[in-house]
Amino acid sequence: MDKEPHISQRFDEELQGVHELVLTMAGVVEEQFANAMVALQHQDSELANEIISRDAVVNGYEVRIEEECIGILARRQPAAGDLRLVMTLIKTIADLERIGDKAAKIANMVLSMGHGSQAIHANFLRDVHAMGEYALRMLREAMDALARADADAAIRIARGDEELNQEYRGATRRLVTYMMEDPRTITAAIDALFIAKAVERVGDHARNVCEYVIYLAKGRNVRHIPLEQVAKDLQKGAS
Amino acid sequence: MDKEPHISQRFDEELQGVHELVLTMAGVVEEQFANAMVALQHQDSELANEIISRDAVVNGYEVRIEEECIGILARRQPAAGDLRLVMTLIKTIADLERIGDKAAKIANMVLSMGHGSQAIHANFLRDVHAMGEYALRMLREAMDALARADADAAIRIARGDEELNQEYRGATRRLVTYMMEDPRTITAAIDALFIAKAVERVGDHARNVCEYVIYLAKGRNVRHIPLEQVAKDLQKGAS
Repeated sequence: MDKEPHISQRFDEELQGVHELVLTMAGVVEEQFANAMVALQHQDSELANEIISRDAVVNGYEVRIEEECIGILARRQPAAGDLRLVMTLIKTIADLERIGDKAAKIANMVLSMGHGSQAIHANFLRDVHAMGEYALRMLREAMDALARADADAAIRIARGDEELNQEYRGATRRLVTYMMEDPRTITAAIDALFIAKAVERVGDHARNVCEYVIYLAKGRNVRHIPLEQVAKDLQKGAS
Repeated sequence: MDKEPHISQRFDEELQGVHELVLTMAGVVEEQFANAMVALQHQDSELANEIISRDAVVNGYEVRIEEECIGILARRQPAAGDLRLVMTLIKTIADLERIGDKAAKIANMVLSMGHGSQAIHANFLRDVHAMGEYALRMLREAMDALARADADAAIRIARGDEELNQEYRGATRRLVTYMMEDPRTITAAIDALFIAKAVERVGDHARNVCEYVIYLAKGRNVRHIPLEQVAKDLQKGAS
């Protein structure tokens, strides 16, 4: 019996350790994405190159954390809430890694746009700046909700994704208008279109993390269920 | 002692059952994607509607299989190869679900393109048809490699993704040319661009499954490692 608390304490420490590693990875990914937005606004190819080379760091975190999670599953055989936490972390790092990819992709486009970049309309830069700020806030808040296993916050943040999607649709409509008015802008506008899409996808990944947080806190898989209904169900469960 | 084989046999059956369920889900997803390509070629809105409503079936498989996998982790506490198999299946269904999303997305575009659809250049339809065939073959072969845990096949299939990416780049270049030549095609060409992108992404997901198969068969996480090197390393390991 007297070994129990010791084993369980070490287990808790292991779980805590990998949880913290995920939050560290999230910090690196947030910075990568924020930098990609800056590189885009200022056509800063030095910063863009830095982001691209730092993507390997993000990938390294993903591989290391996944190995640690599988190690915990094999050695500790967690159940109930502990198992849900490990599953949540495994899924979260896959989304974080993909956000890192988006940052690197945007950085790559900053480099490849080169001379054509002046053709990027100032209005588009304003659009994508606002979208980037919004996506970054979603990501930060989602990771906060994960750190606190806060399902209510997660629902609220996930709902914000619809607003980002609307921004995206507006931005693409405006880009199409520029292209039609001046076909010389077509190539630059298509790059811009894919940049806007990448930013919109960051919001989707943040929303995914929110869904894992609801699963972690409530034990319910809410993927593919409208958020409206999830909020109602959780309220019913709480009362 | 005599309970061991019984427990282990039931465990094997559980694993086998969930493995088969994944292959069934893959069959549904393959059909969804193949149908999306047909709906696009023939501007068939009835088929498109069918694909969209059937996406819920794909999502249902994802939720059910994930629950079964987590149940196996909790009850059976698998180790080594069994644990790798469960992790591989959990990851695979996430990619399959996303391929299902791409099929539904293409079907949605078939519907929304409406009257403008005649503006889609016959050359683009030829391009995307060839890309779709290629992506579908990659997906089928990847699921085959998974069923046989065949790492060599997985490497070969994953390498094919580069060819699909080249096809995609060629198709987008041609689309940009049409847009420049005739700005009236811009809206339709942008729809076409996103359809081509969705098909290209199906190849990425098939490639992901190949990476999980290598992990399953060899116990090595090969994500973020060039395939050239993976092939060399595995050959060395085998000799």
